[in-house]
Amino acid sequence: MMSDAVEKILSWYESDNPGVKTNLARMLYHGKLGGTGKLVILPVDQGFEHGPDRCFVPNPPAYDPHYHFQLAIGAGLSAFASPLGMLEAGAATFAGRIPLILKVNSANLLYPKEGPKTQAVTATVHDALRLGCSAVGLTIYPGSLKSYDMFETAREFVAEAKDVGLPTVIWSYPRGEDLTKEGETAIDIATYATQMAALLGAHIIKVKLPTSFVEAHDVEELYHKGNVPIATLTDRIKLIMKAALGGRRIVVFSGGAKADEAGIIEQAKAIKAGGGNGSIIGRNSFQRSKDDAMKLLGALVDVYRS
Amino acid sequence: MMSDAVEKILSWYESDNPGVKTNLARMLYHGKLGGTGKLVILPVDQGFEHGPDRCFVPNPPAYDPHYHFQLAIGAGLSAFASPLGMLEAGAATFAGRIPLILKVNSANLLYPKEGPKTQAVTATVHDALRLGCSAVGLTIYPGSLKSYDMFETAREFVAEAKDVGLPTVIWSYPRGEDLTKEGETAIDIATYATQMAALLGAHIIKVKLPTSFVEAHDVEELYHKGNVPIATLTDRIKLIMKAALGGRRIVVFSGGAKADEAGIIEQAKAIKAGGGNGSIIGRNSFQRSKDDAMKLLGALVDVYRS
Amino acid sequence: MMSDAVEKILSWYESDNPGVKTNLARMLYHGKLGGTGKLVILPVDQGFEHGPDRCFVPNPPAYDPHYHFQLAIGAGLSAFASPLGMLEAGAATFAGRIPLILKVNSANLLYPKEGPKTQAVTATVHDALRLGCSAVGLTIYPGSLKSYDMFETAREFVAEAKDVGLPTVIWSYPRGEDLTKEGETAIDIATYATQMAALLGAHIIKVKLPTSFVEAHDVEELYHKGNVPIATLTDRIKLIMKAALGGRRIVVFSGGAKADEAGIIEQAKAIKAGGGNGSIIGRNSFQRSKDDAMKLLGALVDVYRS
Amino acid sequence: MMSDAVEKILSWYESDNPGVKTNLARMLYHGKLGGTGKLVILPVDQGFEHGPDRCFVPNPPAYDPHYHFQLAIGAGLSAFASPLGMLEAGAATFAGRIPLILKVNSANLLYPKEGPKTQAVTATVHDALRLGCSAVGLTIYPGSLKSYDMFETAREFVAEAKDVGLPTVIWSYPRGEDLTKEGETAIDIATYATQMAALLGAHIIKVKLPTSFVEAHDVEELYHKGNVPIATLTDRIKLIMKAALGGRRIVVFSGGAKADEAGIIEQAKAIKAGGGNGSIIGRNSFQRSKDDAMKLLGALVDVYRS
Amino acid sequence: MMSDAVEKILSWYESDNPGVKTNLARMLYHGKLGGTGKLVILPVDQGFEHGPDRCFVPNPPAYDPHYHFQLAIGAGLSAFASPLGMLEAGAATFAGRIPLILKVNSANLLYPKEGPKTQAVTATVHDALRLGCSAVGLTIYPGSLKSYDMFETAREFVAEAKDVGLPTVIWSYPRGEDLTKEGETAIDIATYATQMAALLGAHIIKVKLPTSFVEAHDVEELYHKGNVPIATLTDRIKLIMKAALGGRRIVVFSGGAKADEAGIIEQAKAIKAGGGNGSIIGRNSFQRSKDDAMKLLGALVDVYRS
Repeated sequence: MMSDAVEKILSWYESDNPGVKTNLARMLYHGKLGGTGKLVILPVDQGFEHGPDRCFVPNPPAYDPHYHFQLAIGAGLSAFASPLGMLEAGAATFAGRIPLILKVNSANLLYPKEGPKTQAVTATVHDALRLGCSAVGLTIYPGSLKSYDMFETAREFVAEAKDVGLPTVIWSYPRGEDLTKEGETAIDIATYATQMAALLGAHIIKVKLPTSFVEAHDVEELYHKGNVPIATLTDRIKLIMKAALGGRRIVVFSGGAKADEAGIIEQAKAIKAGGGNGSIIGRNSFQRSKDDAMKLLGALVDVYRS
Repeated sequence: MMSDAVEKILSWYESDNPGVKTNLARMLYHGKLGGTGKLVILPVDQGFEHGPDRCFVPNPPAYDPHYHFQLAIGAGLSAFASPLGMLEAGAATFAGRIPLILKVNSANLLYPKEGPKTQAVTATVHDALRLGCSAVGLTIYPGSLKSYDMFETAREFVAEAKDVGLPTVIWSYPRGEDLTKEGETAIDIATYATQMAALLGAHIIKVKLPTSFVEAHDVEELYHKGNVPIATLTDRIKLIMKAALGGRRIVVFSGGAKADEAGIIEQAKAIKAGGGNGSIIGRNSFQRSKDDAMKLLGALVDVYRS
Repeated sequence: MMSDAVEKILSWYESDNPGVKTNLARMLYHGKLGGTGKLVILPVDQGFEHGPDRCFVPNPPAYDPHYHFQLAIGAGLSAFASPLGMLEAGAATFAGRIPLILKVNSANLLYPKEGPKTQAVTATVHDALRLGCSAVGLTIYPGSLKSYDMFETAREFVAEAKDVGLPTVIWSYPRGEDLTKEGETAIDIATYATQMAALLGAHIIKVKLPTSFVEAHDVEELYHKGNVPIATLTDRIKLIMKAALGGRRIVVFSGGAKADEAGIIEQAKAIKAGGGNGSIIGRNSFQRSKDDAMKLLGALVDVYRS
Repeated sequence: MMSDAVEKILSWYESDNPGVKTNLARMLYHGKLGGTGKLVILPVDQGFEHGPDRCFVPNPPAYDPHYHFQLAIGAGLSAFASPLGMLEAGAATFAGRIPLILKVNSANLLYPKEGPKTQAVTATVHDALRLGCSAVGLTIYPGSLKSYDMFETAREFVAEAKDVGLPTVIWSYPRGEDLTKEGETAIDIATYATQMAALLGAHIIKVKLPTSFVEAHDVEELYHKGNVPIATLTDRIKLIMKAALGGRRIVVFSGGAKADEAGIIEQAKAIKAGGGNGSIIGRNSFQRSKDDAMKLLGALVDVYRS
Repeated sequence: MMSDAVEKILSWYESDNPGVKTNLARMLYHGKLGGTGKLVILPVDQGFEHGPDRCFVPNPPAYDPHYHFQLAIGAGLSAFASPLGMLEAGAATFAGRIPLILKVNSANLLYPKEGPKTQAVTATVHDALRLGCSAVGLTIYPGSLKSYDMFETAREFVAEAKDVGLPTVIWSYPRGEDLTKEGETAIDIATYATQMAALLGAHIIKVKLPTSFVEAHDVEELYHKGNVPIATLTDRIKLIMKAALGGRRIVVFSGGAKADEAGIIEQAKAIKAGGGNGSIIGRNSFQRSKDDAMKLLGALVDVYRS
């Protein structure tokens, strides 16, 4: 059951204690992708982020937290990530059957538009231990006026979690007063967001799939002068992996809003071809019927396993 | 991969947080016995308890800590238990490949005979988290003049470990100023030792295989009056399981000094027939050549799996 | 291996404990400049400050953290300074082979223009100990509306680090609402920035090479009346060294954006002639090919060693 | 060597512990004014407040921290006050030879004009103990929008310092959004600033020499109705001493920017005649040549000693 | 300057943070044996243990702490180990010129014979950081009635030191109520003492050179049955290295009372042949004249370097 792919990844976390490595291994050796060095993670924090009805009306059984545990376990995924309350509602029933990632901060759509772009801390490292989680996860918004506060929160979680053997997943989502909407997923901004998460000590980095748009003109010129290809998604994944400390950190990609199955599978193929570590796929799983979701997740896993 | 046997066992730990259940599940779902509700654990604390030469001269490769990790992983055992230094020497190399139990107290043969019967605390709950362990383990000597201090140490570890999601394994070994040598493994003393460990909050109890000797005359009479069978090992295992809070706590049994394979297999069959949860087998594994040990452990696992 | 130059420098830190002196000595006795009292430091925090692509596209192997460790070791530099994530990715592999400086705060180009001029704290003194660093480093922006908060952060790091035997390097970069762009590197502002860092307790001060521009008219008059020469770079380095508590603190100088080799060498000669302690050279090292960087660093070291 | 003048002063600090009294006595029994109840203090925080070149170009040897220790010791002054870095640079060399006051907050001229009128905390009470200081000193700006924060900082320092036997010197400098420039040294504002410092728990209060200008009309009328003389500096010093808890707190006066010797001596005579405790004289000492400074300080001390 | 021998040793400390590895590397890359994987350490704790006159009358310059720093530096040794006061007396003067090991507990000859066999804790981990040490060191007496308390003290130091990046050296000296005098250096007791130190988490283990005496009859039989050679010192060193977690921990050997040069060199050859990591040599260095000591240490270093 030992896997060279996993052992190589673990070797990159050379300054971490065996507890952190063990919890990374718990995810990397789990489920249908166990041993491949690839991960598919189910995140369900959208009930907080977007509201329950927006999330679950398309597939009402998904109002029930157990639904998501069962989906992640049934599909043989690598981990299930969610805020405190949802994990509390299933962590005992499904103990030991799927690695859990406790999302420790959250934003929501009711927050006033004029308010700063930030999130509230909604759980602790101790909660993660108490619930048997394999990691904590939190979001930063590089580019926001509140980003420095968010970085400081990240630093505190990274240090505290690391000390008790838990890795940290950072959702690095550019969002800010000077950023264009298009810039939020621009390739140069995505590599920057990846690098900052890595330098803050993230063990796993989650970014959105980048477009070929380049926000900063000087970087665009550098790409051009340096013959850095960014035309295909595979090209861009490769560039992001470089920004992840030369490929020494795990990066998983999210697609965003609901897409069709073919699109998701194409994206996964590009992620794999570019050396990315996998997908984190929320609404595209739980807003389908369970049968459809299982079929999609099965196909997704097959891409990474092949 | 869900198992009724495991889920039933986990349901008994109804006051524990999901973290404790998750770590119990990590052992119960691991290895060749994963899902059976049975456990075979490799303990290697005898280098401390009896000295390295007594332990490892019969099979010199066993001086190397990695040997034991490899043996436990190779044989598909449920967990590997050892003091701090030995786990430090392999926890990173084998991260995530075998559940670890950090033995947090230790005695040794050099300790003066006139000294109190007790152990030294040699590791912490934080060490267990840092090393990625799934449990802490400690020894108590019911019957010793120091037993109340040891119980208080146990209480502290149980409370601290439970709070961070780690179960506690208690080695409950009767040993005291008023106990006869025969009494140390007497059936009435073994049930008493089991009960005290359970009442101290142990999640897993380790006791020695009991004989049919009865140390206390009043208990002997009660057995007689109540028609309590204690003649066969299976009878005695059943009685011990009752003392384990009516069977609601996991109990594993140790055989002690080196025995022949047939004897060990017979014992395991009795443990299984009596409803015990498995074996903890140290010297009988690592003092054989690796091939012989693999063969014996294979046979042992087969007993519990059948 | 004892050096009068180094021992004299250490004697200036008369109120510090031997731990701080030992870590200063570790840098001053290390590498090709060991024993000369001069330092050349490789800083790689630009991935955070300017973004990974701006930094590393010109020399793609530099995306990999190990590249920088190898460059600093190979060129015989005095120390390598970087944020948390990059040090985590190599501190074990290169343990003991190059003194490390953990940069504990960071800014970035994505931060909104309208935001305050400040940095986020991104690591701790404990991280520095845990990673085996010889110092912590942080940036202050004298002149910024947030400068007083930054000074207070500096005070806390200086006090905490000093207590555990670690010196503090302060990057003192004037940047503020009332400062002209030209003023940021003006000689009178540079001496002021040096003095403030020194009075805050910095052990090593990093400032940018100053121009002969004078921001404040009253100081310009004072220079004139006092016959204070500021025409040549050497003159200005001398003035900065006076502002460094009469030469009692180590000052290293950064050149800034990419320059040609001849220019860098001329600057180093002026730094040396003015009594400065050395160079901190980031982009000008790692944006060249490794061969070119080794050649440049070799020439730079030769200036200070001659 | 016991002195009635000193013992009377110490008796006023009746609620302080003997440690605070001992440190006050260290200053009051030290130097040429030892035993007189008068103090002349050398403060050198202007390198931070105004910049090093503005301070030290007129007398370049003053760039060196040791210069100031030697000046204060050589002139037989009562104490030397300075920020952290300057004391660190000489506290060991001159240990026990001059009482030290650690200035624990600082402002600077680079700070933006639109910024709040406040200071940054730049040292700790622990630093003062570690460096062997006899007091801590800090500035408040009564009248500033930030004054309440500064008062709270003062309260924390006073309480913490007192607890470990250190007195606190408060530089009470009116400066605020509603204050005229003339008002900053108006006599009614000076008494108010004195009183607030005293009520915050200051052991020694430093104010600027007041003018006969009265900022508040109602107070002006009260002075008139009450026949309160404020025409001469001696009158005004008397009024300030009354505001210093009826003369129960030590008050020292600063002159401000460079003045001629005759003027300084006249001021000191007025301070003495008005019952003030002495002078705190920075730029007027160290911006002269050492010979001139020694001559001036000698004359100043003679005024108070006569 | 990278050494395969050193890198291999560092790889054994796989669960330690880079700080611990860095400090091990500081010793392993230092001095004339730098890079060989061998160590010669100068310990001077005998002034506490045996009294200053017993130690230093044979060579009176050795009363001065600086003498020992100079001896260790001059002879190119790997580290200098001593109690608090002696390190305090030289740590600043010799900062950065020799790795220091702070001995944190001590016994002495004045202690009553009827008292328990134990040591007093005489320094802290914070002292080690403050003094710039590369390790802490402490003694345990396996076999003593107080050994369990000593083990618990060791556990606390190991945990606290490890957390701040400092390795721990354990002096493991069997001494107990049931041990014969001959048994204290018996080979079976020496391996046991080595193993216990390793299991307590020691990074470097110091034991006395073992004799071929075997204290326990059962172990003697095991040696015989297992054909374990113990006749030569080299044989015995090999056995001890096995007990050091299969050679995964550094072991250095002390000879004890004054010996002749030829004997010491022979011992070193046997240590090297048996795979031991070096010598810790106190009285045999500093009780000779400095010239003789330099000659002996030079010869000793040559053995390990050859």
